[in-house]
Amino acid sequence: MSLDEINKNEVDIVIGALNADLIPFLNTWRPFFSGFHLIIVKDPDLKEELNIPQGFDVDIYSKTDIEKVVGASNSTMFSGYSCRYFGYLVSKKKYIVSIDDDCVPAKDPKGFLVDAVSQHVSNLENPATPLFFNTLYDPYREGADFVRGYPFSLRSGVPCAASCGLWLNLADLDAPTQALKTEQRNTSYVDAVMTVPLKAMLPVSGINIAFNRELIGPALVPALRIAGEGRVRWETLEDVWCGMCLKHISDHLGYGVKTGLPYVWRNERGDAVESLRKKWEGMKLMEKSVPFFDSLKLPESAVTVADCVVELAKAVKEQLGSDDPAFTQAADAMVKWVQLWSSVNSSG
Amino acid sequence: MSLDEINKNEVDIVIGALNADLIPFLNTWRPFFSGFHLIIVKDPDLKEELNIPQGFDVDIYSKTDIEKVVGASNSTMFSGYSCRYFGYLVSKKKYIVSIDDDCVPAKDPKGFLVDAVSQHVSNLENPATPLFFNTLYDPYREGADFVRGYPFSLRSGVPCAASCGLWLNLADLDAPTQALKTEQRNTSYVDAVMTVPLKAMLPVSGINIAFNRELIGPALVPALRIAGEGRVRWETLEDVWCGMCLKHISDHLGYGVKTGLPYVWRNERGDAVESLRKKWEGMKLMEKSVPFFDSLKLPESAVTVADCVVELAKAVKEQLGSDDPAFTQAADAMVKWVQLWSSVNSSG
Repeated sequence: MSLDEINKNEVDIVIGALNADLIPFLNTWRPFFSGFHLIIVKDPDLKEELNIPQGFDVDIYSKTDIEKVVGASNSTMFSGYSCRYFGYLVSKKKYIVSIDDDCVPAKDPKGFLVDAVSQHVSNLENPATPLFFNTLYDPYREGADFVRGYPFSLRSGVPCAASCGLWLNLADLDAPTQALKTEQRNTSYVDAVMTVPLKAMLPVSGINIAFNRELIGPALVPALRIAGEGRVRWETLEDVWCGMCLKHISDHLGYGVKTGLPYVWRNERGDAVESLRKKWEGMKLMEKSVPFFDSLKLPESAVTVADCVVELAKAVKEQLGSDDPAFTQAADAMVKWVQLWSSVNSSG
Repeated sequence: MSLDEINKNEVDIVIGALNADLIPFLNTWRPFFSGFHLIIVKDPDLKEELNIPQGFDVDIYSKTDIEKVVGASNSTMFSGYSCRYFGYLVSKKKYIVSIDDDCVPAKDPKGFLVDAVSQHVSNLENPATPLFFNTLYDPYREGADFVRGYPFSLRSGVPCAASCGLWLNLADLDAPTQALKTEQRNTSYVDAVMTVPLKAMLPVSGINIAFNRELIGPALVPALRIAGEGRVRWETLEDVWCGMCLKHISDHLGYGVKTGLPYVWRNERGDAVESLRKKWEGMKLMEKSVPFFDSLKLPESAVTVADCVVELAKAVKEQLGSDDPAFTQAADAMVKWVQLWSSVNSSG
């Protein structure tokens, strides 16, 4: 899918600004962001003024704007990396593409810059195939198809809810791995998109992601904060948890989640060795989360995304609440999020 | 994993000979097959003498040999593509690699010939990760790792039961697709190996496959024949059905199945347009098979592969037997297969 074929009015590009100087970031993305509407949400903890180059169609939201919409008491939900969720909340578009501000366009093996926006939208517009595994990868891609034995009744697929892109240079590792392998860089460009099968759990990353806001919007929920969470991705877990919710709800409602292309190029940020000195709470929380999601069964009465998030929050509180206060806080945040989503989206 | 690191005594390369002249086939594979033990099983329907070049360590089995081992009444199980299953039966090795005789080594994107044997053995020797999806593909590959959020308790993986390779040039399409897209060729070399998640169904192809015989041997079962099955892959379904059994049994016993590398280059065989005139029964059978496998739950008492195949056969007969006589025949063949496996493997 090329830029020409995309209806730019259907897409918001949401950027959480953790850096004040967005000039290099936006200039490298200019060929692919031009003509799209950008929502830039400034991390409320960031003191400096944002620097944004000319020539973009952009709405900027600061701490004051956030407080105006959600109230001062709720604005803490949107600090650090979570500020992007405010962009999800106020968007009115069908699709959202969101990319961390330490990423630039990757090059494909032929040396061409990768148009991450078009690839994400293409992933979202084509069906997903979570009900049966296609060994030939994305069957809707030019030159590809369904492999022998793939049931014909499943070849029309299901709607795609989300598209998870990948990372060249700095892969998305956790704190201990990143600290132990400071020199490791991802150089492997795997030219494939696939649907993650039904019931398979995956750790979604918020670094380079897109989703169909109309289909699944409130499932992208800022909720799980680690005690002592840092300001580098490898010290966070919120997007991973959000992805577990997103995948489970997509499965429940009959939608698919894709992973693979597009790649972005991630630059360095933070000191991995410094992270090694911290205790990474994410490890402990994931060990509890996996059996929870594995056995989770949302009730059939949950027919909307909002229903699902509320039911999920209820189950989190009941089953994980006594394990760690982070889970109780996450459950409360999920309920609060659905209320905010409903109020912002109904008020128009 | 390079050829030097492989214990060649642990591997049998099994070739079902559907063509009498194996000289071009074996000569192209010589750099990678040399030093390994080859089991060549001649299709019992093939009249001509086999032509095999010098310099290979090879045991050849003909119709007479098959009848000597399994009896004349059972020898029909091993006609056409199914002749390779006889090689699985008589092998004494840990690993089996099996490649169709219309395939030659593929080239990777750098132009190097792909060593399919080493790649398969490497896939089998490294653990599989079916319990949680790793977006960074095979985490054990040089330069790769587990992505942030991947549970630490699952990072040691589970034993890998099978390795499913892919195809360049002629992809493995079914009869109608192949006939409708006679010009379509697969040129996409996706440089990745991944574990197919727990509970996900996939249509395994026998064109380019390897498995751990000691772990999962009798799950590779010749059973489902389509009425009017032809002698080109796209008119068969037996390996697809065998793969559904293999995957389900691997899931049940806690093993993993991988897909991706190695690629082989598939040459043309057969007339796809001619196939269009036939009614492809495979379509109908797959529509019945998918809900069957989806809801199948093997009893906890099934703790060996043989137990699992017998229980699976019982369920096939009960739940699918009335739908199509091919399923009843498949169930009977599965029971017979386990008996043969037990008798051949205990006597040896």
